[in-house]
Amino acid sequence: MTWKTAVADIPYGGAKGGIGCNPRDLSKSELERLTRVFTQKIHDLIGIHTDVPAPDMGTNAQTMAWILDEYSKFHGHSPAVVTGKPIDLGGSLGREAATGRGVVYATEALLAEYGKSIKGMTFGIQGFGNVGSWASRLIHEKGGKVIAVSDITGALKNPNGIDIPELLKHKEATGSLKSFNGGDSMDPNELLVHECDVLIPCALGGVLNRENAADVKAKFIIEAANHPTDPEADEILSKKGVIILPDIYANAGGVTVSYFEWVQNIQGFMWDEEKVNQELKKYMTKAFHNIKNMCQSHDCNLRMGAFTLGVNRVARATILRGWEA
Amino acid sequence: MTWKTAVADIPYGGAKGGIGCNPRDLSKSELERLTRVFTQKIHDLIGIHTDVPAPDMGTNAQTMAWILDEYSKFHGHSPAVVTGKPIDLGGSLGREAATGRGVVYATEALLAEYGKSIKGMTFGIQGFGNVGSWASRLIHEKGGKVIAVSDITGALKNPNGIDIPELLKHKEATGSLKSFNGGDSMDPNELLVHECDVLIPCALGGVLNRENAADVKAKFIIEAANHPTDPEADEILSKKGVIILPDIYANAGGVTVSYFEWVQNIQGFMWDEEKVNQELKKYMTKAFHNIKNMCQSHDCNLRMGAFTLGVNRVARATILRGWEA
Amino acid sequence: MTWKTAVADIPYGGAKGGIGCNPRDLSKSELERLTRVFTQKIHDLIGIHTDVPAPDMGTNAQTMAWILDEYSKFHGHSPAVVTGKPIDLGGSLGREAATGRGVVYATEALLAEYGKSIKGMTFGIQGFGNVGSWASRLIHEKGGKVIAVSDITGALKNPNGIDIPELLKHKEATGSLKSFNGGDSMDPNELLVHECDVLIPCALGGVLNRENAADVKAKFIIEAANHPTDPEADEILSKKGVIILPDIYANAGGVTVSYFEWVQNIQGFMWDEEKVNQELKKYMTKAFHNIKNMCQSHDCNLRMGAFTLGVNRVARATILRGWEA
Amino acid sequence: MTWKTAVADIPYGGAKGGIGCNPRDLSKSELERLTRVFTQKIHDLIGIHTDVPAPDMGTNAQTMAWILDEYSKFHGHSPAVVTGKPIDLGGSLGREAATGRGVVYATEALLAEYGKSIKGMTFGIQGFGNVGSWASRLIHEKGGKVIAVSDITGALKNPNGIDIPELLKHKEATGSLKSFNGGDSMDPNELLVHECDVLIPCALGGVLNRENAADVKAKFIIEAANHPTDPEADEILSKKGVIILPDIYANAGGVTVSYFEWVQNIQGFMWDEEKVNQELKKYMTKAFHNIKNMCQSHDCNLRMGAFTLGVNRVARATILRGWEA
Amino acid sequence: MTWKTAVADIPYGGAKGGIGCNPRDLSKSELERLTRVFTQKIHDLIGIHTDVPAPDMGTNAQTMAWILDEYSKFHGHSPAVVTGKPIDLGGSLGREAATGRGVVYATEALLAEYGKSIKGMTFGIQGFGNVGSWASRLIHEKGGKVIAVSDITGALKNPNGIDIPELLKHKEATGSLKSFNGGDSMDPNELLVHECDVLIPCALGGVLNRENAADVKAKFIIEAANHPTDPEADEILSKKGVIILPDIYANAGGVTVSYFEWVQNIQGFMWDEEKVNQELKKYMTKAFHNIKNMCQSHDCNLRMGAFTLGVNRVARATILRGWEA
Amino acid sequence: MTWKTAVADIPYGGAKGGIGCNPRDLSKSELERLTRVFTQKIHDLIGIHTDVPAPDMGTNAQTMAWILDEYSKFHGHSPAVVTGKPIDLGGSLGREAATGRGVVYATEALLAEYGKSIKGMTFGIQGFGNVGSWASRLIHEKGGKVIAVSDITGALKNPNGIDIPELLKHKEATGSLKSFNGGDSMDPNELLVHECDVLIPCALGGVLNRENAADVKAKFIIEAANHPTDPEADEILSKKGVIILPDIYANAGGVTVSYFEWVQNIQGFMWDEEKVNQELKKYMTKAFHNIKNMCQSHDCNLRMGAFTLGVNRVARATILRGWEA
Repeated sequence: MTWKTAVADIPYGGAKGGIGCNPRDLSKSELERLTRVFTQKIHDLIGIHTDVPAPDMGTNAQTMAWILDEYSKFHGHSPAVVTGKPIDLGGSLGREAATGRGVVYATEALLAEYGKSIKGMTFGIQGFGNVGSWASRLIHEKGGKVIAVSDITGALKNPNGIDIPELLKHKEATGSLKSFNGGDSMDPNELLVHECDVLIPCALGGVLNRENAADVKAKFIIEAANHPTDPEADEILSKKGVIILPDIYANAGGVTVSYFEWVQNIQGFMWDEEKVNQELKKYMTKAFHNIKNMCQSHDCNLRMGAFTLGVNRVARATILRGWEA
Repeated sequence: MTWKTAVADIPYGGAKGGIGCNPRDLSKSELERLTRVFTQKIHDLIGIHTDVPAPDMGTNAQTMAWILDEYSKFHGHSPAVVTGKPIDLGGSLGREAATGRGVVYATEALLAEYGKSIKGMTFGIQGFGNVGSWASRLIHEKGGKVIAVSDITGALKNPNGIDIPELLKHKEATGSLKSFNGGDSMDPNELLVHECDVLIPCALGGVLNRENAADVKAKFIIEAANHPTDPEADEILSKKGVIILPDIYANAGGVTVSYFEWVQNIQGFMWDEEKVNQELKKYMTKAFHNIKNMCQSHDCNLRMGAFTLGVNRVARATILRGWEA
Repeated sequence: MTWKTAVADIPYGGAKGGIGCNPRDLSKSELERLTRVFTQKIHDLIGIHTDVPAPDMGTNAQTMAWILDEYSKFHGHSPAVVTGKPIDLGGSLGREAATGRGVVYATEALLAEYGKSIKGMTFGIQGFGNVGSWASRLIHEKGGKVIAVSDITGALKNPNGIDIPELLKHKEATGSLKSFNGGDSMDPNELLVHECDVLIPCALGGVLNRENAADVKAKFIIEAANHPTDPEADEILSKKGVIILPDIYANAGGVTVSYFEWVQNIQGFMWDEEKVNQELKKYMTKAFHNIKNMCQSHDCNLRMGAFTLGVNRVARATILRGWEA
Repeated sequence: MTWKTAVADIPYGGAKGGIGCNPRDLSKSELERLTRVFTQKIHDLIGIHTDVPAPDMGTNAQTMAWILDEYSKFHGHSPAVVTGKPIDLGGSLGREAATGRGVVYATEALLAEYGKSIKGMTFGIQGFGNVGSWASRLIHEKGGKVIAVSDITGALKNPNGIDIPELLKHKEATGSLKSFNGGDSMDPNELLVHECDVLIPCALGGVLNRENAADVKAKFIIEAANHPTDPEADEILSKKGVIILPDIYANAGGVTVSYFEWVQNIQGFMWDEEKVNQELKKYMTKAFHNIKNMCQSHDCNLRMGAFTLGVNRVARATILRGWEA
Repeated sequence: MTWKTAVADIPYGGAKGGIGCNPRDLSKSELERLTRVFTQKIHDLIGIHTDVPAPDMGTNAQTMAWILDEYSKFHGHSPAVVTGKPIDLGGSLGREAATGRGVVYATEALLAEYGKSIKGMTFGIQGFGNVGSWASRLIHEKGGKVIAVSDITGALKNPNGIDIPELLKHKEATGSLKSFNGGDSMDPNELLVHECDVLIPCALGGVLNRENAADVKAKFIIEAANHPTDPEADEILSKKGVIILPDIYANAGGVTVSYFEWVQNIQGFMWDEEKVNQELKKYMTKAFHNIKNMCQSHDCNLRMGAFTLGVNRVARATILRGWEA
Repeated sequence: MTWKTAVADIPYGGAKGGIGCNPRDLSKSELERLTRVFTQKIHDLIGIHTDVPAPDMGTNAQTMAWILDEYSKFHGHSPAVVTGKPIDLGGSLGREAATGRGVVYATEALLAEYGKSIKGMTFGIQGFGNVGSWASRLIHEKGGKVIAVSDITGALKNPNGIDIPELLKHKEATGSLKSFNGGDSMDPNELLVHECDVLIPCALGGVLNRENAADVKAKFIIEAANHPTDPEADEILSKKGVIILPDIYANAGGVTVSYFEWVQNIQGFMWDEEKVNQELKKYMTKAFHNIKNMCQSHDCNLRMGAFTLGVNRVARATILRGWEA
């Protein structure tokens, strides 16, 4: 996270912490008590200007609400101490869609560099959860053709572009991509090597590897998932001239809007959704140009450019603070 | 206040506190000493994120200045600990006019719902103090006809619309509505049942009651005062089809700009008056649409819609924080 | 500083503190240790809402970084505790140019009062350090003719206007104004009495005095330096009808952007450079009009108007807080 | 309590607070949760140097343990924040017996004033709970003859003195005074008017009143209970020349050892029981002499002397602190 | 004070602060307000473990009470923040007599070194204020003969020893030493050179100087005043073999009991006067032996031994804390 | 440590922390800087009422001085935050000898239980470092015969008792036990099985094991070292009827005087060495009787009795605080 937030130019570092348990084995009341006692033990280690928890695997907005409530017993009302809160307790509008929306802004910035835009291009979306479905919806709105999507329930293709709003209704109703009559079903494994301009893996890590990298047809890969391309695939794809937008940048929309939530709480003033999205676009676009500049001055690809950008930022701050010794 | 701030979507609750004395019986020096000692006793109970005093009956901007000064001895310079401060000590521009201006924005939002606007409609204004005179001035500016006004010094009518700027000069010069030559004097009690499109009671509670409710001619009542319509009148007027914009929403402009003052202090950056008014309009308009949605989904009138909105917000937050048990 | 910040309408006072030593005699490591120990001793006396250090003679952005780092050990991460920080640690964009840019905005506000603008007027700039060179660059961009400049390395004149961007390149390359082939060299002492519309002293105090005041040809003097006009010169120039924009206002751009840096840190959200410059213009222009109003109501010159504005603001706040006794 | 602690020369004031509930209707887990939430709400109002709770009706050492545990979450380990704690958590040795032991030390001080001692005198003890049984045991140890005792289960007399250790074993075994074969049963109401040198009411208030005061045979009354003598009885007894040691002094042993517990916690060092008892004797004896001096200088009885002592102490402190205005 | 407290082995340093005014020109109310505002300004710089004010010239126990009261508004009840308080607010018993009593303990320690004791020796006491009169009283009690005393009202001698208790009564009654019939009046200037074993200057500095040093008859001089012996006199007396007990040690009884007051407040438990005096004797005696050891190991006189003891203690602590660099 | 402090009835728990480095590889300046930075990082986790560091392997009084100095920058002067400090910075008298002295008090308590005393008994001391040499010295003073001692430089025996003061001089002079002419050298391994009444292992763990346990001649073993007896030896010795005083109790003198140091710092008042030793004896003796009672009520040996005592204390406190769930 330290490098990701440095790339996004957000004044955050990175840290993780948790409780070793399976939240599905606990009742809501047990989860609440566990979260409160945990907060009692760490309340002096987190804080608005120290460490700001946000939901990750196995926690959600309700968990953040409990942390906020317990923390505030010790330090007074402190909405900024967690992000990813329920909107009723100071959460940000637009946070649910933030990662998917950030992926789309990143894609636009990349395509613009090549004189292209989303409109009229074809997209393959692997994964149709929160990130994949929001990305699909926004690409569709902007005139892009989503010609293939997949999730754990199956895969679907339509060379004329899938009607995403209809597909979302279908999935909400049935819980599955299956039996949607606006496209033909396909083997989910084929999606990654399907013919398309832009491939967006939105699910697990390691899906692009030496087994399939050589067969990828897309010209652009947008890493909406974490680590979808393994190092071997990275090398194969680079040699083929495929442009890969690295995860460290491409999926930074979520943490960026977490940061906006914190800013709104700090300022005591909430933004409307339009303002959230507009600032997200500004941050994603600026970060792309910073990476691009790094690539030019260091003659490297986007992944290396992004890492160099992040590491340099942290290094400069470290030296200025006098920590180098 | 808890429900009013919930309706206005301001992150505030409600509380009252005071000293049992008649400020008119005390010298300025006594008032200052009393205020300082009071602040010494409660300084640990109020605070920027705890409870933020603002002027009410018998206190004013000077009182807030003393509280701020004394509080800051204990907690460092803390302009956000009170609102309604003098502008020289961090008070907000536009706060003096805020309640009256909020009433006008609320009226505009309501009329727009009925395809109407202030321009060209006729208004009766009961009460010509801070709220009534600001509302009158702004209605006049927007092309509305104020055809009747009253205060404790008398009442005035003019079917072609009273020249409000002239009336304000007259009142400033003479301290009274009397002998203004731009209208005819009338019985103040008749104002409430005078022919007009919009009636705005800006003075005391309970002025609309079973004695006069049946005779009201206005199609819209905007409750700029607190509780101007008693329950019986409410029922009579509703049956007649009169649309009542409830006080809990209609006069929330004052507390909203108090909140803006706090936001400006928190952010260390003051807004110009244009920005204050523009944000006030945004808040008043958004709240109206939230109430309206509540009325539609619960099939109720505006008063019930406003209360439902406020109570629901507080209830949702209460449950999310885990206080329901 | 108290009066300057009051004129600029910034919620700051004024204070100075330092260590009696010659920083040039100390190694970087010694400076760092000295700065850290100094910070350990004063950390309870400075603070975000108490006193906010910024660089002055012999200190710089690196010094502020060390103070910030040491202070934060005691009080947690507190970027707002110093201004003039490196941008990588929360410094503001646009701060380097701020004083020079503020001088130009002040000049525009003054000229507009006389129906004039920078475009087409002639300027003499005494001093070509940070302030003078930024002022020259911006005047050049806005179409003003800089017909004479000087610094400790010499002076230069060109009645058709000097090509400032070229001169800046020349100075960067050679470290001197000498041997620049876009103008003729002149006696630096003559610059102050050279023919021009606007004279901007950007260097030392006391350069305009009874020796040369009677010979000044400019119609407007903008005091970008501190105290460039001594009291005798002030009287002579006033009698001649020269309009002097006083230093207390004219060079307030630096502290104003220091304040913006603090605001950005307080809000946890950095502004882009365009926003910084636009707010600086708003503050400089508003302050000019406030001074002008003071001059009109008190029938005095700009210097007296500026002081009256500043002193009155502080006096009003003092009385409201109850400190008058 | 304020007057009692002033008489005892303890640096404490007096305050009460509680929860309106019947602890017998609640489970232990409910009591614990109720106590913890109560502590969360008041933790900023109590404190080692602010207000120090101790057990009263319906609360006990376990309640204090919960308060201590919850308070310490907020303020760190703070054993001194409550007294009457379990010994394992920092409670004082000797606290259980403290009130009864204090009564005996008070009695000794009074008798010494009249050239007498406990040894050889006869005592009537009304009430055989914590206070009465400890007083009896200690009087017996010191050679006094307890010739009558009573509690809610009955009354007992033996002109040769009851064998108190045996009676305590009997009561522990049977829960009652009845059927103890070391004395004759008597009407409990008669105990108060039974022939004895010293009468010690250790139970309820108001037991000595106009019904029975004239019949009291004792020469000394030690008010171990609160308010055992009503005002009418007080007058009757005084006229008869009975010496009454007032409750405000006589039963101050409990709060005195609470204070010693706090001192031990403050000092981080516990006293052995011998030291506790020895200090208690010192405090009780010194207070008696202070009261006596007050009686002499004001020519009043012991009750009035005790009140005058307490009120004067508080008054002097109030004036010295500058609160008199 | 730093050296004095180091000699006395008290964990204190030394500091002074004050307000430039003549307390005799101010009313009690003005003094109170001045003291309170002063305390508001310095409350963050003093403190139980930082700096502990005590009365000096122009301030007294009442002043300390005001400081305590005002300080406690900010930091909670803090009796240890000042010493020299009124006993009713936590002042120590025995503090009034402390300096005089300390002088006597110091004298005993010195005489014991020479196989002598107070009993039977003759004393001249210059100054009969707080220190001189307490020293005289205690010397008298211990069997010493005070054969001469002086104050600003005159001087008195009696070769058989003055009856000090009678003299104290006389002075209390008349405010003067004059016309006391238990001795003959003498020239106050002669007291210092009067025949006696031990001379104790208890008044101003510099009374022993080159004018009179050679004529001093005493074998021992106890510096109860500050700096009574000027450097020239010091040399002359040393050459004559007069033993001088230096002020830095001899009058440390006052600050020592101030320290005891602080200890009692810290511990929440007051000492009786006997304990105070006994600890004072222990401290004075121990310090004398420490000085003596220093004199032996450094072969120097008592003044130099005392300074060496104090400076060494501070130096050792400084090095151990790592401040030497 | 938790069980040891519970056995000693000290209000402490147990915790360890450190830096992975070899202090012998670092200069004093490096050690100081390392210690200071370490303290900066943990200063919020340690504290007077939280965790109180004391020296252990590789750290000493100087290390504690640095921690104290650095900690005090953050929290004000706090001598109680570390124990084992230099005496000049608030360390306790008697701490150097404390473990050895505690061993001797423990031995006396044990022997008294068997109607014996140190006087006249014979002792074998394995290890002659800080603990062993202090124990030997005190045993010698009390009339015990130390008939054998050993350290890493060799071993020595003398059936008439070694002259310990002479041996200490010899070791100080030569650094070794060798060539002391007041005894005969022996094989160090034989010391443990040498004929004596009381064997005191003061060096490493595990020295008594199945190899030599059966050959031990002593009737009493005092575990001054940590874990000198391994479990097998424990069983063998118990069967032989040897009485073992367990380490958890026997060597608790060191932590007990650390606790006294903390108490003295908390109280702001240092004890003289006599008082330290007297309190140490009281604590050691009381703990022995508590263990003995536990042995009687649980019918177990001293080791089990000590553990049961410690664990029970912690368990009771845990339940009372409500942590059992």
